[in-house]
Amino acid sequence: MQASTSPTHRVVIIGGGFAGLAAAKSLGRAPVEVTLIDRRNFHLFQPLLYQVATGGLSPANISSPLRAILKRQRNTRVWLADVQDFDVANKRVILSDGVIEYDTLILATGVSHQYFGNDHWEAAAPGLKTIEDATRIRREVLAAFEAAERASDPQAVADLLTFVVIGAGPTGVELAGALAEISRTTLKDNFRRIDPASARILLVEGGERVLPSFPPDLSARAQQDLERMGVEVRLNTKVIDVKEGEIKVLVDGVESLIRTYTLLWAAGVKASPLGQKLAEQTGAEVDRVGRVVVGPDCALPSHPEIFVAGDLAHFVQDGKPLPGLASVAKRQGHYIADVIERRLRGEPVTPYVYKDPGTMATIGRASAVADLHFTRLTGFLGWLAWLFIHLILIVEFQNRVLVLLQWAWTYLTRNRAARLITGRGYPFVEGVIDDDQ
Amino acid sequence: MQASTSPTHRVVIIGGGFAGLAAAKSLGRAPVEVTLIDRRNFHLFQPLLYQVATGGLSPANISSPLRAILKRQRNTRVWLADVQDFDVANKRVILSDGVIEYDTLILATGVSHQYFGNDHWEAAAPGLKTIEDATRIRREVLAAFEAAERASDPQAVADLLTFVVIGAGPTGVELAGALAEISRTTLKDNFRRIDPASARILLVEGGERVLPSFPPDLSARAQQDLERMGVEVRLNTKVIDVKEGEIKVLVDGVESLIRTYTLLWAAGVKASPLGQKLAEQTGAEVDRVGRVVVGPDCALPSHPEIFVAGDLAHFVQDGKPLPGLASVAKRQGHYIADVIERRLRGEPVTPYVYKDPGTMATIGRASAVADLHFTRLTGFLGWLAWLFIHLILIVEFQNRVLVLLQWAWTYLTRNRAARLITGRGYPFVEGVIDDDQ
Repeated sequence: MQASTSPTHRVVIIGGGFAGLAAAKSLGRAPVEVTLIDRRNFHLFQPLLYQVATGGLSPANISSPLRAILKRQRNTRVWLADVQDFDVANKRVILSDGVIEYDTLILATGVSHQYFGNDHWEAAAPGLKTIEDATRIRREVLAAFEAAERASDPQAVADLLTFVVIGAGPTGVELAGALAEISRTTLKDNFRRIDPASARILLVEGGERVLPSFPPDLSARAQQDLERMGVEVRLNTKVIDVKEGEIKVLVDGVESLIRTYTLLWAAGVKASPLGQKLAEQTGAEVDRVGRVVVGPDCALPSHPEIFVAGDLAHFVQDGKPLPGLASVAKRQGHYIADVIERRLRGEPVTPYVYKDPGTMATIGRASAVADLHFTRLTGFLGWLAWLFIHLILIVEFQNRVLVLLQWAWTYLTRNRAARLITGRGYPFVEGVIDDDQ
Repeated sequence: MQASTSPTHRVVIIGGGFAGLAAAKSLGRAPVEVTLIDRRNFHLFQPLLYQVATGGLSPANISSPLRAILKRQRNTRVWLADVQDFDVANKRVILSDGVIEYDTLILATGVSHQYFGNDHWEAAAPGLKTIEDATRIRREVLAAFEAAERASDPQAVADLLTFVVIGAGPTGVELAGALAEISRTTLKDNFRRIDPASARILLVEGGERVLPSFPPDLSARAQQDLERMGVEVRLNTKVIDVKEGEIKVLVDGVESLIRTYTLLWAAGVKASPLGQKLAEQTGAEVDRVGRVVVGPDCALPSHPEIFVAGDLAHFVQDGKPLPGLASVAKRQGHYIADVIERRLRGEPVTPYVYKDPGTMATIGRASAVADLHFTRLTGFLGWLAWLFIHLILIVEFQNRVLVLLQWAWTYLTRNRAARLITGRGYPFVEGVIDDDQ
């Protein structure tokens, strides 16, 4: 007995997010050789990143080592590497320190935040896409309260206790809700000079309602819940400049300034630059934010051996592109794995169809809005639906248990145990402390 | 009815470790005004820091926000500040951004690691005292395995898979044991090119046995357990030079080189520099490593209103200084609070006596040595004792539950969920990857 000498079909997957990981897992028993490439050694459950940024969960609670997830798949290896470019003519991926050949390529490197041509705003207004972003935001928020406790100039205290979130999509709404909770409940009785509940949380949105991708009545309910929690919602408000210490906004053609030490950016995404590089070599189209337009089988029309999945893919269904959601990415990953297996077996392939299970956003303790099509849930019921669906999406059983336990704890005690200021020495905020006691 | 107008006695505590926090908590109902000063916003459970360094626990599992712990003590405030010096003549503490006055001062700023006059070794050989140290070590250890998987030069692979721990006190023994566990069990099946179990773990000790502060038979047992787990124990081996990529050691007068990418320092402590500054103004003695010599009431003989506690104190009992243990620090903190209350009430004060409950060190999964005086425990029983006592010492109930749950998990699955490479982009190790696949 000898193994077949025909070379094994090589599938290279770039990106260990929801799409890439789902594809890799689905191919675990397929007669292919899988290489999953990522720059990080873990899969990140991005929908809960705002919980890390606000001290409710630890980074490891929402991260799972890719090697641990895939260790039993003998046909799969994990490759920590930095992809620089492609050589599609020779079916090769160019790494910063090598090359790798493929028979089928799946590109799923997602999106990062964008500042609409003002990348220098990032220094003052961090976005939330990575673990490092989340611990940075956690440090900046907590440090602002600490500095306020020690500052004696009333203006400095007021500025330190003003938190501005830019962008009222799901991430912005969840961040603003969590900040309101921290200041109103978590930090209660924690300070002696300042009252954390006096902190102002501003949610600034250029459009005319929060959660613009949701049905209008749920947007209205979300806004109502946010305001009840103490968030000031500023609609039709465009940010036109960002500096350390203040932002300039435009409302009805009138400019005004908002002073703040803590500015969080949740206003827009741009595609991973690898999408553009792939498009240049394949003639594929990219959309306005750099996502790669794919055909009905999630592959490039010109290169059927190249798939693009998840947030990086521009997949048109019912005349509009699918939204950048974990559930879309995960299902596309599974679908693509199925297409690869069918093609190897010479079977026909049916086009991808996304069955939208609905969208949801949490607004704070025991409150969320959920649009599940057959029903709409708000308040506590919405929150239970949100909780349940997020727990199901988490990859590892251990993390599911730990996250559930910590949520139960936070819910009961209103504590947030992971509120650590790490990664930078004292003072955390320069030049505002000037006191004699 | 009017409150007394006599000024309240002001107690200033510097350092929120075991000693400082115990003192603050004991004074919660005393008729004094307490200020607890720290540069960090959390109390750190240092005995488990090696678990964070080896991916078994998250930073927040062993950290508790000081404000949360003390929020119900209305007589206590937490002050995030950086202490620079003292003005003992005027009973003032000099901060980097202010001053603070005291009637009684408790200095408990602990120790950091020392390189015996070779501070430049720190770049290549990180010690383990802070959360940042722990996540740095975690990154370096995990990155070495990742780089080895992608390196093609056999010498580079061998160097990357050699881990050297310098110093065989409890921290060094625990680190070496955890590294052996990671390479032998946690990472099993995680890689395709390298076998993590082939990693060499060297424990280098200048003295003639591991755990020199333990009874000799427990040292022998610990060494035996370490060797059974695959740790190479090198006794009577002095480190004479440390460079990126290698260390030079001296054995029986003969120099030799050990090549390694990952070097961990657990070889010595030096006192917080504030001890020296306090000594200069008060004429107090300091010992060889900079600890402040205190009298039988834990106060300075020349300044009874100034106490030094915990690792920073040199307290002589039975002719030798007490060891730097959490239990010593915690008890001294409680004792000092009692002394302050007794003095205010005009009651007599009895000298401090430390009743040694014993010492212990864990060697790996379900194995530890414990010297409890009335009995000595090894193996699984020692480990249970170690587990129990550490859980009791953890400050917050939530952390106790989470730590216990994660340990149970790690014990059952041999997984370590918190093994994230964070804080630095790819490549994690420069110049070793050179391959075409």
